[in-house]
Amino acid sequence: MIGSGNVATILGRKMIQAGHEVAQVFSKQEDHARALALEFACGYTASLGALEREADLFVAALADSAIPDLAAVLRLDRKLIVHTAGAVSKEVLKPVSTNYGVLYPLQSIHREIPVATEIPLLIDGNTAEDLALLADFARTMTDKVRVADDAMRTKLHVAAVLVNNFTNHLYALAEDYCLKEGLEFSLLKPLIQETALRLETRSPRLLQTGPAARGDLGTIQSHLSLLEAYPEIKELYGHLTKSILANH
Amino acid sequence: MIGSGNVATILGRKMIQAGHEVAQVFSKQEDHARALALEFACGYTASLGALEREADLFVAALADSAIPDLAAVLRLDRKLIVHTAGAVSKEVLKPVSTNYGVLYPLQSIHREIPVATEIPLLIDGNTAEDLALLADFARTMTDKVRVADDAMRTKLHVAAVLVNNFTNHLYALAEDYCLKEGLEFSLLKPLIQETALRLETRSPRLLQTGPAARGDLGTIQSHLSLLEAYPEIKELYGHLTKSILANH
Repeated sequence: MIGSGNVATILGRKMIQAGHEVAQVFSKQEDHARALALEFACGYTASLGALEREADLFVAALADSAIPDLAAVLRLDRKLIVHTAGAVSKEVLKPVSTNYGVLYPLQSIHREIPVATEIPLLIDGNTAEDLALLADFARTMTDKVRVADDAMRTKLHVAAVLVNNFTNHLYALAEDYCLKEGLEFSLLKPLIQETALRLETRSPRLLQTGPAARGDLGTIQSHLSLLEAYPEIKELYGHLTKSILANH
Repeated sequence: MIGSGNVATILGRKMIQAGHEVAQVFSKQEDHARALALEFACGYTASLGALEREADLFVAALADSAIPDLAAVLRLDRKLIVHTAGAVSKEVLKPVSTNYGVLYPLQSIHREIPVATEIPLLIDGNTAEDLALLADFARTMTDKVRVADDAMRTKLHVAAVLVNNFTNHLYALAEDYCLKEGLEFSLLKPLIQETALRLETRSPRLLQTGPAARGDLGTIQSHLSLLEAYPEIKELYGHLTKSILANH
């Protein structure tokens, strides 16, 4: 396991739960490597020269920008190496080995927060054999395994930004507004959860409600007035309302 | 129960589940009144003149714009009447009775979709006595009961638009994008749910991730290029990204 951050931690745990063995943890930050190796009951190193080279799979669970840096210095001949990034081409790993690919968890991953839902795994490989191997491996950890090439993975990453980063930002703005207005943000949590859980059975297009969806310009206007002291929220309110109005 | 739409249906069910009796359903559309009365095992009418006036509480579960219309013609003397709207002042009901208030379910309510989460109830009343009575009544249906005057309720309604209407619109845009690009939108559902469920234990501010939160302008640029054929999504991507960049 190359890396010791959020994805390395959660993916390593998944692997161990599925009966695989993590042979070694590498991290430039030795204390991070040691801490994770302790959890995984395996060796660790902070030196690429001391990398355990007998593993079946090398997982580079690194920040996007760190993957090319690794690829510039690591040589693994015919060993299969994958990265775990949504927005990085698998070709970045080409200098490392004849066999390379991707194992991308399409999920929001924080080391300290157990994932309560599923973690779909998007896989890619430069040979059919590696792809089959990665598919078998990924399926030991989740039922939701899909082959996705660079183009498809990048597009899903865009969609993930819309439904995760942007919605979370709206939650954060709402929390901010509630704090400043003396409202209990927690009262909104059932609504937030309901909005997400409902997609299990319905298309979001059919679930759109609210003043913009029903063209209620009076309520929109009074909301904009209430947001006078929050120019940032007010601006986004305007843009998103315009977009909903155009769709309904 | 005055009204036969989504809120009338869900609130009526909650009332009956809690051991209350719905005396009668009123709706201008007699077939709607009849259908709901059948479910509630009570009488119905489409004529205000035939309204059952012996009830302890009159619930006007109507569209925002229909509440003033009702208030213009209904007279109930000292009977307690509430409406169920987030963005309508309780004073709209003043002509109807000496006793009036609000029973607002802070939830996204669709008749045909059972609410899987809680339904917080925000209450208001023009007398302390009515407020106490409404609090007791609401608490038979949920633990999450809060007193919220017109100003507070309206502000929570603004926040609800941010976390429900706007996030759902982002889900809809993502679904649209996936359909057109041949991607499986359902692969994003675990991520969507995770993003919402995580708020149970963490503040959204601490959960913000993604290219904008980490100032990754390269990925932002490549996402914007991918959205070239989707000007509406691209525009919102730009606005929301700008807002996240300003916050992180």
